[in-house]
Amino acid sequence: MLSSPFLDEMAGRRVLVKAENLQHTGSFKFRGGWSALSGMSEAQRANGVIAYSSGNHAQGVAMAAAKFGIPAVILMPSDSPRLKIENTRALGAEVVLYDRLTESREDLGATISAERGLALVKPYDDPLVIAGQGTVGLEIVEQAVAEGVAKADVLVPCGGGGLTSGISITMEGTGLRARPCEPEGFDDATRSLASGKREVNATQGGSICDAIVTNSPGEITFPIMLKNCGSGLVVSDGEAMRAVALAYQRLKIVLEPGGAVALAAALFHSDEIEGDAVIVVTTGGNVDTDVFTRCLETL
Amino acid sequence: MLSSPFLDEMAGRRVLVKAENLQHTGSFKFRGGWSALSGMSEAQRANGVIAYSSGNHAQGVAMAAAKFGIPAVILMPSDSPRLKIENTRALGAEVVLYDRLTESREDLGATISAERGLALVKPYDDPLVIAGQGTVGLEIVEQAVAEGVAKADVLVPCGGGGLTSGISITMEGTGLRARPCEPEGFDDATRSLASGKREVNATQGGSICDAIVTNSPGEITFPIMLKNCGSGLVVSDGEAMRAVALAYQRLKIVLEPGGAVALAAALFHSDEIEGDAVIVVTTGGNVDTDVFTRCLETL
Repeated sequence: MLSSPFLDEMAGRRVLVKAENLQHTGSFKFRGGWSALSGMSEAQRANGVIAYSSGNHAQGVAMAAAKFGIPAVILMPSDSPRLKIENTRALGAEVVLYDRLTESREDLGATISAERGLALVKPYDDPLVIAGQGTVGLEIVEQAVAEGVAKADVLVPCGGGGLTSGISITMEGTGLRARPCEPEGFDDATRSLASGKREVNATQGGSICDAIVTNSPGEITFPIMLKNCGSGLVVSDGEAMRAVALAYQRLKIVLEPGGAVALAAALFHSDEIEGDAVIVVTTGGNVDTDVFTRCLETL
Repeated sequence: MLSSPFLDEMAGRRVLVKAENLQHTGSFKFRGGWSALSGMSEAQRANGVIAYSSGNHAQGVAMAAAKFGIPAVILMPSDSPRLKIENTRALGAEVVLYDRLTESREDLGATISAERGLALVKPYDDPLVIAGQGTVGLEIVEQAVAEGVAKADVLVPCGGGGLTSGISITMEGTGLRARPCEPEGFDDATRSLASGKREVNATQGGSICDAIVTNSPGEITFPIMLKNCGSGLVVSDGEAMRAVALAYQRLKIVLEPGGAVALAAALFHSDEIEGDAVIVVTTGGNVDTDVFTRCLETL
């Protein structure tokens, strides 16, 4: 895990960063894609796979499919960052764009799957995907011991909850506790954990943290989170952008704003966190350069 | 080590990146500083240490001194990147600035050392410093085996040769071979390896690759390099800047231009390299933001 005395000082405690932006395809999503394809029978994946994603899941599934030597069709919102669309194509996938405000990706995906006999790889609500993302947590549990951290909050950027729920399972019976982090206006997981039922966001798109915007926590992921997780943390877009800039300056890593919300929570909401150390997952670095340079202007 | 299929395709072979910009203080230099201080007797380091550096060695020594709880005085050229000066101060060191064109840092350093009884930590021409930097090579040798790479060139950004010579020692008797990489106009190591004697650069400053600009290879480092290293590689400033941009885009890491010259050699001078794989050391990421954003404009 990465660290910097400058960030420790800002947070008022040790900050240990699990940098999943350095994972294959620039986000943790390769883990879930690889896990899902590995768990299918050869017959199930023979005709290829299909996925819908704002970008990081797309690239993760595309690379996993390429490694298995099978076709991948990816449905992406037409307003996804350009780099994510280009990378998904370059990884060998066929990209089909849709309008996220007027078209149903589920209907479009069902039609294409049926026509071609493709297996759907869901972005989070699938036990194999949750298990794959959970491997981040297995590594954190080991690394925390190596760092002498016995008890700490583990802050996780949260969309549909695949990563957060997967990590939370690996921390049962340890002194570590997963807590979801979200951007303002898209805090469905935080509100759901508070109310005990799956809450829905008022709006669906338009956040600078596009990578982790979902409508509500998943059917499968939410009960796991409710059982295991601490309360959620909510950061502003400005805080996420400043966390991107500080990760650049102090850790020498590239993050997208959605991938930086847990770091933002550690740095700017330290009064909502307990303990001498905090563990932060940075989930992705697939950022358009104009957004990244706007983040750097906050330094 | 980090990798990307996009970089593999550009280079025409596997590119494996040892990302020392992720090391403490944002460059490999902490290793040498830590090694030097660890090798001194308690009496030797009691009054503190002094170092002269364009920036990365400064931060490495400053952090090592802070961990030993002793004072550090750092002599830095007044045209060093602002971030490096600020970081060195923030790590607890006393920074003394000098004009690199008109003042002798050696004379200035000797005066201050004598007055205060400080121990000098040289940037490269010291066996303990070379040994510390060489730990990068020990890790590469292990990681290459894990990656199934038995034979490869190992490209290393080279200033005075502390890192290159240290790495080269660890690769004796393996299929790996260290090769220094330098910016155009400051290719003293490359020319020295070709002629068999220590050559000197025509100019001393003004490169965008400031971190790795030295006048000539070291007295101690050069014979080690001559014995162990393959020929040098020389890249243009433009190639170094484009390598910074590609490392940002494809590996999600932040490099300074000097820290990217070996990656530039792997990507843009592939006809000068042999084998199915190449290993690249990225040495540092302490870059001023205006330089970094200029690099991103090359995308």
